[in-house]
Amino acid sequence: MMRSNTHQVSDFAAKSANGAPIRVPAGLKGVIVTDTEIGDVRGREGFYHYRQYSAIDLARERTLEEVWFLLFEGHLPEPAELVHFKAEIAPFQALPESVKPLLKGIAQAGDPWSPLDALRTSLSLVCAARSMRPCFDSTVEERRRDALWICAQVPTLVAALWRLRNGEEPLEPNASQSYASNYLRMVTGTEPAPEHARAIEQYLISTIDHGFNASTFTARVIAATGADLGACVVGAIGAFSGPLHGGSPARALETLDAIGRPENIEAWARPRIEAGERMMGFGHAVYRTEDPRSRLLFEVAERLGGERVAFAKQVEREILALLGELKPGRELYTNVEFYAGVLLDACGIPRPMFTSTFATSRVIGWCANILEQSADRQIIRPSARYVGPPAPQPLPATSKN
Amino acid sequence: MMRSNTHQVSDFAAKSANGAPIRVPAGLKGVIVTDTEIGDVRGREGFYHYRQYSAIDLARERTLEEVWFLLFEGHLPEPAELVHFKAEIAPFQALPESVKPLLKGIAQAGDPWSPLDALRTSLSLVCAARSMRPCFDSTVEERRRDALWICAQVPTLVAALWRLRNGEEPLEPNASQSYASNYLRMVTGTEPAPEHARAIEQYLISTIDHGFNASTFTARVIAATGADLGACVVGAIGAFSGPLHGGSPARALETLDAIGRPENIEAWARPRIEAGERMMGFGHAVYRTEDPRSRLLFEVAERLGGERVAFAKQVEREILALLGELKPGRELYTNVEFYAGVLLDACGIPRPMFTSTFATSRVIGWCANILEQSADRQIIRPSARYVGPPAPQPLPATSKN
Repeated sequence: MMRSNTHQVSDFAAKSANGAPIRVPAGLKGVIVTDTEIGDVRGREGFYHYRQYSAIDLARERTLEEVWFLLFEGHLPEPAELVHFKAEIAPFQALPESVKPLLKGIAQAGDPWSPLDALRTSLSLVCAARSMRPCFDSTVEERRRDALWICAQVPTLVAALWRLRNGEEPLEPNASQSYASNYLRMVTGTEPAPEHARAIEQYLISTIDHGFNASTFTARVIAATGADLGACVVGAIGAFSGPLHGGSPARALETLDAIGRPENIEAWARPRIEAGERMMGFGHAVYRTEDPRSRLLFEVAERLGGERVAFAKQVEREILALLGELKPGRELYTNVEFYAGVLLDACGIPRPMFTSTFATSRVIGWCANILEQSADRQIIRPSARYVGPPAPQPLPATSKN
Repeated sequence: MMRSNTHQVSDFAAKSANGAPIRVPAGLKGVIVTDTEIGDVRGREGFYHYRQYSAIDLARERTLEEVWFLLFEGHLPEPAELVHFKAEIAPFQALPESVKPLLKGIAQAGDPWSPLDALRTSLSLVCAARSMRPCFDSTVEERRRDALWICAQVPTLVAALWRLRNGEEPLEPNASQSYASNYLRMVTGTEPAPEHARAIEQYLISTIDHGFNASTFTARVIAATGADLGACVVGAIGAFSGPLHGGSPARALETLDAIGRPENIEAWARPRIEAGERMMGFGHAVYRTEDPRSRLLFEVAERLGGERVAFAKQVEREILALLGELKPGRELYTNVEFYAGVLLDACGIPRPMFTSTFATSRVIGWCANILEQSADRQIIRPSARYVGPPAPQPLPATSKN
């Protein structure tokens, strides 16, 4: 696979003469906040990478633990490094005893239930219990261990909260299983088939990191205050819960359900596209091509087989044709959501757990970004432009209440 | 007080020709992320305002409830509006019954204890229990009520966690008391003297908002994903806990303790300034003058009287003289921390609670900012520049483990 590394048009350096505030495009679009060695998304090419490797290649050929190591250390592990890495993670998967009695209450809060809210609360709690030192005051090694610990805690927490919400006892992590297999077992309560464990693992690898998305940026803004790893990841989970962020693979699956049968596709989709509705599972903020994750996840889902995969494929084909006809030039393609839902469902992940399953891998990307940001002791503190009434106005006389 | 409203030098609009990424100063310094009507800090003038009024004037002449109303509604309340506002807040101060049994465990997590971590966890929990709708999907009125509710919950939570940590039962909020008096009573367990309640109230008013600081920015980045109010405030608390953010009034008090006596001031400070150490309580990222909050808090502290205030005054005078001698042209002045610690201590707030007391007012500023951001359905998603090894490299052959 030959790709140029000089894909970026050169930067435009914005500097104001006399310290005047700098206005930039809305939402900081295209504004470079930082340099990174963690990876990149090349929207025009339909390509993204972790460190120096194609993320899709990694998902096809490597294990999650290897890719996790790569994100943290910058290179793929030698066999001995991987053994050491797994041994280091193993004890981090078990939840602190002191917080276990609180998890049931946390899992019961809220109706309708938000698994991400429960994860946010419980992760905040376990991090508080660990009494992490602020990134600003800690050593590189302390931060690395806190980050590993958080990444290892998240799947255990996500699974435990799900079971507790459903009146079941959480299962203990099993350090001899792979990360993905262990997670699937702790959620479903049964030993997963190897092809399901591998499918989930490939999904998780492909979603670890994806450029400077809003949750990753949130994590880095918090890290830049010198706060501890827990504060950063808890904040990132909050951004992750926003409907404008990543969306949810469950929505694309709901679309498939709503369409129901192959012969309904056009009748369902045409009026919605004509009315300007967003098609769940289509379109991405950065890609101007097919989302490379979509192709991978289709292949993985197809390997698992089943009617739904064939149906999804047909829905994709017909909706893309309609989009081409009704929105020519809009460059709308299937995104990561479209086949992710099909894949997760086929592996036995309950639908309400799709987004928090996504979080179990994305936390690795957040942590790699936090570790990188922590090396730079510079706060991220932009400006706002005051556009209200002229100030100061004299205070009106107080009316005594 | 006459001040020009055209204090800002005109913006510099950075636009790249062909969609090329825009490089801006490190930490987004001087980069305008958004327009705001909530307020502004004019660093050169030593002036900051909420909406159209001087924050210091407000702290001198108004109640916290009036200023809270101002931040949310854009104008100071008429008497009838204030009555209605207080009635609306009153029931929001009580914690949800379902979460009360969990607070003791949350308060016990961590050693050393971080009151901010405990606030983060418990606020995440009560927000989850409320099942807020994402800002993206909610009405203006729903968001406003969620924001009021969060602001009313925070002082109750902060006080309850403190008492539980110390083996005491939390006190119920009393809606007939002022916000400040109620908070002071719930923390200390005794009915506060009116001058202490008013001093705390003035401190709280002066710290509600302060431009586009890192926690406010964090809250707005999360809000821009469309997430709910709880997700935004929980993230802001994380940024607030960073040592590079606001600092802590306790540190300035520790400096006073370390100096001990008036005759030690120069001997303590001179070698530290010469060694380039940062003096806690001096210097600010934005102000090139005295921090206007510092002057107000000094006056309030002086009204309360006591030896410590006189000593602090002398420390300020001598350290400023030393800074002028040893760091000429550096424009270092006392900041908000310096007299805040003296004031909070004099009112009976325990030292470990200084930063979370700060959070009980800052949450009002965060929420006003979140409400403003939510009106703008635009995600904040900047870029990073990949500077790692050229990608993609071919994957090395897998070594089977």
